[in-house]
Amino acid sequence: MKVSIINVGHEVLQGDVLNTNAHFLSVELSNLGYDVITQSVCKDDQQDLVDLLEFVSKKSEIIILTGGLGPTKDDLTKEVLCDFLKRKLKPSPKVLKNIEEKFKSFNKEMTENNKKQALIIDGAKVLMNEKGTAPGFIVKDQNKSYILLPGPPREMKYLYEKYVMTYLSSIQHGNIESCVIKLSGIGESAVESKLNDIYRPSEVYVGTYASLGEVKIKLTITDEKMREALDLLKEKIYEGFSNYIVSHSNQETYHQVCEHLIDKSISISTAESCTGGLLSSKIVEHSGISSIYPGSFITYSNDLKMRILKVNENSLIQNGAVSEVVVKEMIEGLYQITKTDICVAISGIAGPNGGTEEKPVGLVYIGIKIFDDLIIDRKIYRGNRNEVREQSVKKVFDIISQKLIIDN
Amino acid sequence: MKVSIINVGHEVLQGDVLNTNAHFLSVELSNLGYDVITQSVCKDDQQDLVDLLEFVSKKSEIIILTGGLGPTKDDLTKEVLCDFLKRKLKPSPKVLKNIEEKFKSFNKEMTENNKKQALIIDGAKVLMNEKGTAPGFIVKDQNKSYILLPGPPREMKYLYEKYVMTYLSSIQHGNIESCVIKLSGIGESAVESKLNDIYRPSEVYVGTYASLGEVKIKLTITDEKMREALDLLKEKIYEGFSNYIVSHSNQETYHQVCEHLIDKSISISTAESCTGGLLSSKIVEHSGISSIYPGSFITYSNDLKMRILKVNENSLIQNGAVSEVVVKEMIEGLYQITKTDICVAISGIAGPNGGTEEKPVGLVYIGIKIFDDLIIDRKIYRGNRNEVREQSVKKVFDIISQKLIIDN
Repeated sequence: MKVSIINVGHEVLQGDVLNTNAHFLSVELSNLGYDVITQSVCKDDQQDLVDLLEFVSKKSEIIILTGGLGPTKDDLTKEVLCDFLKRKLKPSPKVLKNIEEKFKSFNKEMTENNKKQALIIDGAKVLMNEKGTAPGFIVKDQNKSYILLPGPPREMKYLYEKYVMTYLSSIQHGNIESCVIKLSGIGESAVESKLNDIYRPSEVYVGTYASLGEVKIKLTITDEKMREALDLLKEKIYEGFSNYIVSHSNQETYHQVCEHLIDKSISISTAESCTGGLLSSKIVEHSGISSIYPGSFITYSNDLKMRILKVNENSLIQNGAVSEVVVKEMIEGLYQITKTDICVAISGIAGPNGGTEEKPVGLVYIGIKIFDDLIIDRKIYRGNRNEVREQSVKKVFDIISQKLIIDN
Repeated sequence: MKVSIINVGHEVLQGDVLNTNAHFLSVELSNLGYDVITQSVCKDDQQDLVDLLEFVSKKSEIIILTGGLGPTKDDLTKEVLCDFLKRKLKPSPKVLKNIEEKFKSFNKEMTENNKKQALIIDGAKVLMNEKGTAPGFIVKDQNKSYILLPGPPREMKYLYEKYVMTYLSSIQHGNIESCVIKLSGIGESAVESKLNDIYRPSEVYVGTYASLGEVKIKLTITDEKMREALDLLKEKIYEGFSNYIVSHSNQETYHQVCEHLIDKSISISTAESCTGGLLSSKIVEHSGISSIYPGSFITYSNDLKMRILKVNENSLIQNGAVSEVVVKEMIEGLYQITKTDICVAISGIAGPNGGTEEKPVGLVYIGIKIFDDLIIDRKIYRGNRNEVREQSVKKVFDIISQKLIIDN
């Protein structure tokens, strides 16, 4: 079933806000087997929104709108949709009560303009918002569903998860299945070229997507009957790309790795220089991590590398901080403090300054001690300061994934 | 001048990729004074893209397309635009040479399908891509400009900064000016209500935007003649919201703070528990930070808090790790190691588990020693694990900004 997503609000168009709502909804809708055919952002403008509704309604069975449900004069999504569908707005005492209670619990004063949020669309299912003051709506109209959700991401997600997911699951027929294989160390066109040599059953849709430091192959089927073809193709891809596979899951590799570590009680700690806490921060995203993660040392200065991790001054003078020798000593020093099963050390030149001919910007040494194995990875990453840092962190999780998840 | 942004690629629609290109372009275009009227994402599909081009061309003078310039069969943006504008594609030996050299320098094998990227649009300005293999294009057609850029963000940004910015600056007339005031500790509707009490000159467009932990007021004028009204309004807002202002800049507060610290040679170090390196990672984003930042300690476990930061076992037993006493001891321990001008310690319950009635999920203690002043901030943040962590980090920069930048 075809879905269009509309995000209303000129804060997105002016670049004041990154549109994470469209991304969240696309992930969720794809998981449910919906075909998202367009994402659009438009201003809080009567005519623009009407034109857009007309354009996308022709192509879609479901239209999801986020934003423009706030208390201010600019917020007019509800009003425009009512005009478009020739419906009326009416006050709801129940919604008003919820708004009043919210203000009480936030210890904030309710203002007159907040009452606008208590107007509901006639004939619509009202989605009560426990996380904020703007209710959401599901409006069925001539075989199409219009779903309105508030713009703030946490309120939007809450209403989606509480009401919309169930609604969409109930009306979707013919679920599709998709699987993702993530590769590292090979470019997108080489992947496609290699894929062309592999038998490609026509029932399986094969897509490739390149992003920072990885290429994803996504296989999709739209019917249970195609499962055999999917399985066959998967097997051939596993075989053909075995050296490059870092994950079999669409879940980001670092989530997979951290959940695996928690699940298997494998402890980890890190000593970071150029990544500066980016690695530890990714680890700490996971609830339950305290059982396997004591902490990290961001030894950005050479002085802290020596005082905390007991890196030798001579090693630093002779090899520089960005070297195999220093990374090994960082691991050893880290291990002496934390005694974790996995110890990671990173030292590199993130740039834009500090590079030399011998050690250019982008050069990063990663050392990983996994139980008794020591892996040292030396690589020159392309990109700006933060892209170098991000690719380095990604690489750490790729290495651990290949060592602990893929190869087992 | 009105601009529409189109991002082509079903990886965005399926949620495999977050659409940072639209965000980047919106920020840049707004800064140049362009009016971005719509952002759209559509599939690599001939008919969908033609329909969308027709729809947005009616409303816009500039149409920027990203994505779909790759070597694979799915990539068809260039081909569809040529059909739409009735133009031809022709091979370019110069572009082909660039592609061949790229492959050589990446040590990767050039495949047959890469030659597709050497086809250029007849009559278009070709934007040579030093960062990748797909060239970009500027096509002028009947008083409109169509600008094609590759999908990978670093290539898109490179071509934008090298060619497109100059082109757009040269054709834009009547630059607008906008300024942003960031507030913390007050809700969006209270802001709007308070704004209504302040004289609002009709020539100045006033917008308010709420995001995690802050509300932005954006003031925009479209003509130099309105500057006086803008300045007057700014003054009144500074007066009316003085308790809530954390920044006068649209630049994110943490960039402002870190650049200020580097500029003034004020050193900083951090001791983090629940934020787990998120704070230090934000600091290390800044080039030149090594002159004022020695490092951080992510003492997630109580054991490391005691061993590294010399937090007293009794303090932990009697008060718990999330307490004013422990945060003060973390700062003291940190200061003894790093002796930096600013020492920050954070301890909190990010959730979803670990909360009690007395210390609920979201409770975070932030301690900041700025020279001889000690600030302790206790707050219960709403939101999920990562939202609590992000708001805590934001709060640190807000406090430093208020102390060092706003109040001076």
